[in-house]
Amino acid sequence: MSDIRTQSLQKPVSVAEYLFRRLHQIGIRSVHGLPGDFNLVALDYVPKAGLKWVGSVNELNAAYAADGYARAKGISALVTTFGVGELSAINGVAGAYSEHVPIVHIVGCPSTISQRNGMLLHHTLGNGDFHVFANMSEHISCDVAKLVKPSEIASQIDHAIRECWIRSRPVYIWLPTDMVEKKIEGARLDTEIDLSEPENDPDREDYVVDVVLKYLHGAKNPVVLVDACAIRHRVTEEVNKLIEKTKLPVFVTPMGKGAFDETSEHYGGVYAGIGSLPEVAKRVEGSDLVLSIGAMKSDFNTAGFSYHTSQLNTIDLHSDHCTVRYSEYPGVSMRGVLRKVTERIDVSKLSITPSPQVENAVAQNKDDSQIITQAWFWPRIGEYFQEGDVVVTETGTSNFGIWESKFPKGVMGVTQVLWGSIGWSVGATQGAALAVKDLEQDRRTILFVGDGSFQLTCQEVSTMLKHNLRVTIFLIYNEGYTIERYIHGMDADYNDIIRWNYTDIPAVFGAKEGHAQKFVIKTKDELEKLLKDKDFNEYKGLQFVELWMPKDDAPRALKLTAEISAKNNSRIEDEQ
Amino acid sequence: MSDIRTQSLQKPVSVAEYLFRRLHQIGIRSVHGLPGDFNLVALDYVPKAGLKWVGSVNELNAAYAADGYARAKGISALVTTFGVGELSAINGVAGAYSEHVPIVHIVGCPSTISQRNGMLLHHTLGNGDFHVFANMSEHISCDVAKLVKPSEIASQIDHAIRECWIRSRPVYIWLPTDMVEKKIEGARLDTEIDLSEPENDPDREDYVVDVVLKYLHGAKNPVVLVDACAIRHRVTEEVNKLIEKTKLPVFVTPMGKGAFDETSEHYGGVYAGIGSLPEVAKRVEGSDLVLSIGAMKSDFNTAGFSYHTSQLNTIDLHSDHCTVRYSEYPGVSMRGVLRKVTERIDVSKLSITPSPQVENAVAQNKDDSQIITQAWFWPRIGEYFQEGDVVVTETGTSNFGIWESKFPKGVMGVTQVLWGSIGWSVGATQGAALAVKDLEQDRRTILFVGDGSFQLTCQEVSTMLKHNLRVTIFLIYNEGYTIERYIHGMDADYNDIIRWNYTDIPAVFGAKEGHAQKFVIKTKDELEKLLKDKDFNEYKGLQFVELWMPKDDAPRALKLTAEISAKNNSRIEDEQ
Repeated sequence: MSDIRTQSLQKPVSVAEYLFRRLHQIGIRSVHGLPGDFNLVALDYVPKAGLKWVGSVNELNAAYAADGYARAKGISALVTTFGVGELSAINGVAGAYSEHVPIVHIVGCPSTISQRNGMLLHHTLGNGDFHVFANMSEHISCDVAKLVKPSEIASQIDHAIRECWIRSRPVYIWLPTDMVEKKIEGARLDTEIDLSEPENDPDREDYVVDVVLKYLHGAKNPVVLVDACAIRHRVTEEVNKLIEKTKLPVFVTPMGKGAFDETSEHYGGVYAGIGSLPEVAKRVEGSDLVLSIGAMKSDFNTAGFSYHTSQLNTIDLHSDHCTVRYSEYPGVSMRGVLRKVTERIDVSKLSITPSPQVENAVAQNKDDSQIITQAWFWPRIGEYFQEGDVVVTETGTSNFGIWESKFPKGVMGVTQVLWGSIGWSVGATQGAALAVKDLEQDRRTILFVGDGSFQLTCQEVSTMLKHNLRVTIFLIYNEGYTIERYIHGMDADYNDIIRWNYTDIPAVFGAKEGHAQKFVIKTKDELEKLLKDKDFNEYKGLQFVELWMPKDDAPRALKLTAEISAKNNSRIEDEQ
Repeated sequence: MSDIRTQSLQKPVSVAEYLFRRLHQIGIRSVHGLPGDFNLVALDYVPKAGLKWVGSVNELNAAYAADGYARAKGISALVTTFGVGELSAINGVAGAYSEHVPIVHIVGCPSTISQRNGMLLHHTLGNGDFHVFANMSEHISCDVAKLVKPSEIASQIDHAIRECWIRSRPVYIWLPTDMVEKKIEGARLDTEIDLSEPENDPDREDYVVDVVLKYLHGAKNPVVLVDACAIRHRVTEEVNKLIEKTKLPVFVTPMGKGAFDETSEHYGGVYAGIGSLPEVAKRVEGSDLVLSIGAMKSDFNTAGFSYHTSQLNTIDLHSDHCTVRYSEYPGVSMRGVLRKVTERIDVSKLSITPSPQVENAVAQNKDDSQIITQAWFWPRIGEYFQEGDVVVTETGTSNFGIWESKFPKGVMGVTQVLWGSIGWSVGATQGAALAVKDLEQDRRTILFVGDGSFQLTCQEVSTMLKHNLRVTIFLIYNEGYTIERYIHGMDADYNDIIRWNYTDIPAVFGAKEGHAQKFVIKTKDELEKLLKDKDFNEYKGLQFVELWMPKDDAPRALKLTAEISAKNNSRIEDEQ
């Protein structure tokens, strides 16, 4: 049977070769993950497809790194082993699902024969259920492809990859050991997978465009608000063209930061309800038409649901639907709408109020002390950033502080505000920096992470060193989980951590002479000197900066948001 | 309403106080986990109940540590936060489920009010589904208790804890922030939870006992084989009494190692099919009656399903059923059967063949070289062990090598052969050593871990230091994933790791002067000297030994098992 079937194939290729060549075709160059006995043979095909094996130090870090890689390069791949490996990674993949990041997660699993025989294998629950882990992943994957029948595998792979891209969320590919080298039709590889988004129905789209134009033309002081899904669903070019033509004032949310050129005269700052600067809040909340693009109105993205805008003044454009005031248009995707709105808008009918000026408020936050405060630091670091930097911020003080930094042109902001898994940023930095390297771009990747978060995933520094990535880590040394302190337990033991010798981390994790350097910065003057140092700015290896900041200090916006979170947590109903 | 209900309570206590006092009553003294905003208020009640907060560095490590703690102390508790925290821990909890280890997993989750309002909170998938993570955990928990109605909470907690203990598997307790301080009936706390196992139906039990006795009395050369579930379901005392009376020869499986006193004249060694020493295989496979207690016949526990025993010669006793030859007795638990068999056995009718002699085969494995081989090392380390040591071995060379070490009396073996998640042992060591400390016992906890595995969870050394635990770590420096090399890819890049400066790890992770020491051991002579050193043997803090062993060396049993695994993975059906 087997021979006959293989003979009927025009260009027989093994399943693993097919899969990895497809990943290469869509732009992936590095594959994250760890070896495990159920994926080993598949890994032999990684280099054969022109891909690099990253080899992270654990699966959660690998998943976080795949997330960072996908954010910087468009899509990524992660290979784990059955049970133990995939479950270690599941929090990282869930984060990607939550935040609309496309990761192709490939899980090497026991052979279909072992499964049918119900063998009591290692990495199982000992109950003969081989589907239990895939069932868990189903909740955090937009497609699950179990590759068990050779004649269907090629189309399953193509479908999963397309879903991953189009829906911008993880997919789960289940690869039994006995399928890895089965032969399937390689001729399909001559045609690339169609990754184009389905077009909107033209009549429905035209209808929505007309409605949007009507409100835009009629508004007195319209603004555009760009959020996470504008980035994740890849419409930032469409947004740029709209603004170029219309000169509408543009604001971003915390999760949208980096989506629009902050040096543009049309850029007005970060809007996050009560977390916004006063002039930003005034402009957005005073607007009679907010054109919101790719919104994700989560608690931490809105400073605790503190928007003071009305749905009556809002148009929401999304990847799978649009809402104009209270009218809903399911199935109408924003890309087509944005393009036609830009094409058809009558600029002469627009009433444009200029954006507020955005600057790094260094002078305003300066005081006489040498203590590096959060209020002073973030505007100051804004001045340090250069065109094209990749800026990664961790859940905690960094995620809120970065609102106060103005980005130069082309800076990519990488942040996980909705899922908010502490430790994520260390892995994500590795992935983003590797993506930059794979793109052969000479950009700096800069991480801001608190000491508490860093401890969870510290060993990913080892992978950065292994691949000689260009990374600068600012470790905020403030003695524990500051974001938690502001929510509850300011002085509680459980929010403390123990002091590590952080700056020795690169050396311990394998830094070679000349590939890493370290700094301890305790004062404003020391920081000023460092940030102006030419070598520090241009260094190509790994730099580790231990930055001393007060334990009980936090950015303005974090304090406000934490207070609202604490209230939500403890709210008791009137009657029970 | 609220006031009226509280007034009707005899001794009102908050839910958190009730829960943590229950944990204290069943013997838990330290609670593992990490703070997260949805569990912070609950954590305030940990010290109030007389419990210590461990504060691990990440959730997976915390889960592994809770696993180790439960193995050494009987049961353990783990607190994580909704979504991000619990998913990071899920692999560790799944391992405990697989291996029958009781962990009470408490997950702090958003308030019931936020849930009902479908708020777009951080740590969610952004889709309003607050049950998705609990649904995942349902597969790896023997009880799920969602605490949402105060009047039911006390009985839910009691039921969950009882299930956890009796079934010796994890339970999942879902604690919304608004339930933490709700008042419930504290008078229940005056009566401890009934943790006694249900008795067997006496007639059924008598029937099984008669059958077992008939075969035992009639057998020519019966043997006892003790496996994992004898330990996990706490029948080692019953086994001891049986052997004391009958003098039957006793063998253990790899997962059962440590269950029986290896210095006893009745102890015959480790049986694992073709992985056994020849005289062991001969005795067990030549037996006409194997009384198997708590078997878990997984691939790695049986050297690749290589038992040469017949079910016709086997009696299997389990926690929830017994099997005699092919006759099954569901619902009959081994404890009652063992007790009655011991009580009623007629020793004069038994035919006893003495056990093989067990010794550490140091001399037989000595060669002229100074290279520390696996074959020489494990018997040699057997001589180093002392009465009462806790010996933790990692998946990989250690798990197989330890078969060749004879334990002194009272040594506890801690190993995860079925689930086999690499990195587990570092967390488990922390938990086991902490349990020893909580028990106020002066025992050594000794870990054997390969460099590849160690990298996944290295930062748990920080928690060992924080609690000043007595731990000796033998890090086997053999440059990568040796167990994987033997399965596939002996020289493949993906089985390599990068070289860390391992012995600097304690200093980086916060070791205080005099609380840690380090060694690099490259030769047999160096190791001999170290193992005989009085200070090394008696040290009370953390010791880190980097032990050089050849990259391509592995214990005999691992080589055999890996070969069978590789065959299973690649087996192709005859027709397809």
